[in-house]
Amino acid sequence: MRVMSYFCDTARRWPMNTVPALIEQGKKVIDLSADFRLENIDRWEAWYGVKHVAPALVERAVYGLPELNREALRSAQLVACPGCYPTAVQLGFMPLLKAGVVDPSSLIASCASGTSGAGRSAKLNLLLTEATESMKSYGVSGHRHLPEMEQGLSRMANSDVKLTFVPHLAPMVRGIHATLFAKLTDASVNLQSLYKACYENEPFVILTGGDYEPETRHVAGTNRCEVDVTRPEGDTVVVTVAIDNLVKGASGQAIQAMNLMYQLDETLGLESPAVIP
Amino acid sequence: MRVMSYFCDTARRWPMNTVPALIEQGKKVIDLSADFRLENIDRWEAWYGVKHVAPALVERAVYGLPELNREALRSAQLVACPGCYPTAVQLGFMPLLKAGVVDPSSLIASCASGTSGAGRSAKLNLLLTEATESMKSYGVSGHRHLPEMEQGLSRMANSDVKLTFVPHLAPMVRGIHATLFAKLTDASVNLQSLYKACYENEPFVILTGGDYEPETRHVAGTNRCEVDVTRPEGDTVVVTVAIDNLVKGASGQAIQAMNLMYQLDETLGLESPAVIP
Amino acid sequence: MRVMSYFCDTARRWPMNTVPALIEQGKKVIDLSADFRLENIDRWEAWYGVKHVAPALVERAVYGLPELNREALRSAQLVACPGCYPTAVQLGFMPLLKAGVVDPSSLIASCASGTSGAGRSAKLNLLLTEATESMKSYGVSGHRHLPEMEQGLSRMANSDVKLTFVPHLAPMVRGIHATLFAKLTDASVNLQSLYKACYENEPFVILTGGDYEPETRHVAGTNRCEVDVTRPEGDTVVVTVAIDNLVKGASGQAIQAMNLMYQLDETLGLESPAVIP
Amino acid sequence: MRVMSYFCDTARRWPMNTVPALIEQGKKVIDLSADFRLENIDRWEAWYGVKHVAPALVERAVYGLPELNREALRSAQLVACPGCYPTAVQLGFMPLLKAGVVDPSSLIASCASGTSGAGRSAKLNLLLTEATESMKSYGVSGHRHLPEMEQGLSRMANSDVKLTFVPHLAPMVRGIHATLFAKLTDASVNLQSLYKACYENEPFVILTGGDYEPETRHVAGTNRCEVDVTRPEGDTVVVTVAIDNLVKGASGQAIQAMNLMYQLDETLGLESPAVIP
Repeated sequence: MRVMSYFCDTARRWPMNTVPALIEQGKKVIDLSADFRLENIDRWEAWYGVKHVAPALVERAVYGLPELNREALRSAQLVACPGCYPTAVQLGFMPLLKAGVVDPSSLIASCASGTSGAGRSAKLNLLLTEATESMKSYGVSGHRHLPEMEQGLSRMANSDVKLTFVPHLAPMVRGIHATLFAKLTDASVNLQSLYKACYENEPFVILTGGDYEPETRHVAGTNRCEVDVTRPEGDTVVVTVAIDNLVKGASGQAIQAMNLMYQLDETLGLESPAVIP
Repeated sequence: MRVMSYFCDTARRWPMNTVPALIEQGKKVIDLSADFRLENIDRWEAWYGVKHVAPALVERAVYGLPELNREALRSAQLVACPGCYPTAVQLGFMPLLKAGVVDPSSLIASCASGTSGAGRSAKLNLLLTEATESMKSYGVSGHRHLPEMEQGLSRMANSDVKLTFVPHLAPMVRGIHATLFAKLTDASVNLQSLYKACYENEPFVILTGGDYEPETRHVAGTNRCEVDVTRPEGDTVVVTVAIDNLVKGASGQAIQAMNLMYQLDETLGLESPAVIP
Repeated sequence: MRVMSYFCDTARRWPMNTVPALIEQGKKVIDLSADFRLENIDRWEAWYGVKHVAPALVERAVYGLPELNREALRSAQLVACPGCYPTAVQLGFMPLLKAGVVDPSSLIASCASGTSGAGRSAKLNLLLTEATESMKSYGVSGHRHLPEMEQGLSRMANSDVKLTFVPHLAPMVRGIHATLFAKLTDASVNLQSLYKACYENEPFVILTGGDYEPETRHVAGTNRCEVDVTRPEGDTVVVTVAIDNLVKGASGQAIQAMNLMYQLDETLGLESPAVIP
Repeated sequence: MRVMSYFCDTARRWPMNTVPALIEQGKKVIDLSADFRLENIDRWEAWYGVKHVAPALVERAVYGLPELNREALRSAQLVACPGCYPTAVQLGFMPLLKAGVVDPSSLIASCASGTSGAGRSAKLNLLLTEATESMKSYGVSGHRHLPEMEQGLSRMANSDVKLTFVPHLAPMVRGIHATLFAKLTDASVNLQSLYKACYENEPFVILTGGDYEPETRHVAGTNRCEVDVTRPEGDTVVVTVAIDNLVKGASGQAIQAMNLMYQLDETLGLESPAVIP
């Protein structure tokens, strides 16, 4: 077997321009860009400001979240791999939405990312001098990954889900921390059991079960996703999630998808972390 | 005039034991502990695990948030000064609650604090080795400042307010960043005007007006509070707030209260920041 | 009095082009660039790669280190202000060289700077992602401030001084830390007395006297310079120095020089630190 | 084969109390404490303040620096493993001392360590609040690892070597950076060739050859040691070294020694870094 998967990014080019030819040649493609993630082509074009040249492929693409689409990934030819925020937010909400126990109009995600989430580009606001020792939100009024998250969450809920999403820049290199809120519609649900049923066989999801709270350094350099679910006083459920944006939120996820596509052990190549930066 | 105010803390003692004698002597007291903040003595005793020995003084204490209680502070003898999270959360929600434009059962606060918020104590989880390069929530299931916040927010709203509060530890020394969410009940409200009307004469509240987002380093070493209000798609309003927990969230606030109690210029002594740590 | 001093920098222009006209008009000039610091024009031209257009003014310029040149500064019209590394290194070695108790061929300076020392420019190596959690040297084979330091140290010693200088980038925003080494030629010297005699009346030099070691955060946001001198086993003396590169190592020093030029209190305007970044 | 090596530390006990019995049972011992490192028992007792109970074993112990003692380690029963500063300093100076091209009385080491070098203990000076954003020296007047370094360096030189050693605390978790100075006695030596001859077959020593300067993040989470040698103007040679104090400066070195003792591949188990903290 020759591994012919291609890992693409959108830094300077649009994979939608090159992927159709690869698909026609029968090659398998795992795409880390946003080109094949959003079913609603109008919404995609509105956010990215260009015309989509391969809308037919968007329908064929499998969304590369193994915890959601494991079976479909085994036979996928084109995978649209989710990035950091969508991975953390969707894994956090999935058990609640699949079980239909929260109000789908009540979802809120307050997330923080290390500065590596912005890529390796020489920008003033990413200098150590500017970014260290500070917390700030950004893009409160709208973020380009919001439509992708709403689409994924809606599929899980089988109904239209609205999400309020606020990303923050945290003074650190790696890690996504997500704190998620939703109103329970079924007060009797056992949240711990719900999450356990959903994730107990997942190789990369760690439920902390209330023993400790997810923390980005616990997962740094790994493909793991730590999740905890809590119900403080009242009917709002709080889910906290930690991933490494450079592994489970990026290339680690792509490798996990590739392992599934090639019937390899799903954890292959994912036990030795890369640690720079 | 001899300044006879005392700045107390609860690190090792309970001010409720010493304050009654000072009040009887006619002295003015500004208390930074939680001893005189909570009207509901039962709830206070439940959180702190001791019997309150001066409940009568709690009623007489003025809650030391100048933006809320300026007039009362001018003639106060005993001030219960709010700390970092309550200051950021209450200043953020105040205009919405006073105007009655949000559902008082929908309030959510996702906040992050630098490690100085935990005080200068030699604990393993506060070591640079453990706390740097990481984000985590803590106390999701309940935090001792929640009752104080709910009391303050309820007074603003003139109705019972429920708050879901999740604090986080951020890898930095100073700063509180609060991201607040509430459901609008009046979709026609002009949020920018509402906040401007409330804060335009406040010497220490800076409305960013959507021009930029509040950031803890903007207010580091100052008594300032940066606030922005945004309404993304949908009916959830998002308020972001930044303060320096060691100034506006602590002694700076006490000095501001003292200036009011003694008819001094409210900003006196608050323009030269302390910068260690 | 109208303050007519000009604070120049070399970011995009050469002050040597504009200063001569100002001097002719009788104005006082404090220059923060390197244009008037180096008596040896050939060496200056070799480092900066351009022809010097105002060599006559170099001779008239007073080197703006108040601890060295206080009297000359009182009547100076043109001041060449030293930057961060030269200030720390020269203040550390000065008592030893003036007293002639060390071998002038034995000087070594191992220094570390926060990333703000590189200016506010969007460079990859200054990103939080690249610069945090790491130490490295740079420019070991030669640094453009070396000739300036050797010139200053030679004047103090009244003989030719050779310095080995290794700068490092430390994972922090502010601060210069210098660790200096020299071989004692006079083993009987009382180092503490020597330093005390030199610096006891200096408003901005703090001798730690072995009670604690200089630390950059002690001087952050101030115009102070902390100095300690130690003699471990053997005949090598070790001097440690800490300054804030953005104050004593830059504009703070210029203000101190200006205060002297205008017969103002030398500490005027230098007690309220600026704390961003 | 049952691996019977014991990894000891001195946090709360003295391995010299337990090791003799193990040796008598024929077991192989790798000791990470200082108990068996120092031939001069008087000097050891002076630094540690207790009587040495197993001086005979000190003579039998092999100093566990593979780059120096590879052959002896293959047949060693007791290994005294060097820690972080001694590893960086000795690997940096070794080629110069073995070749006899520097003055053995001129050695200076200015080193910086991340705070993990102080161990995982809850001390005020190691709090993020106290240690971040600051550089300082410590123990300038004497450090307990100095005798060990002088002993090792003297063996390499076959003569009495004196070292001036200044350690610093850097605001980061991991990493030792060493900047070393020595006076050349042979001006004709080709330094690059000297280092290449010494280290070209070493699996864990990376010579940067002047292409870039060693940096602690390059070696974070690895057993590698980056080394560069430079000769600026004059006769002082500068060597810069970077290691990860938690791997090559600690347990990684012990594993490397163990691999040699058991005739295993020397790199076994050393390609997968541990990344917490």
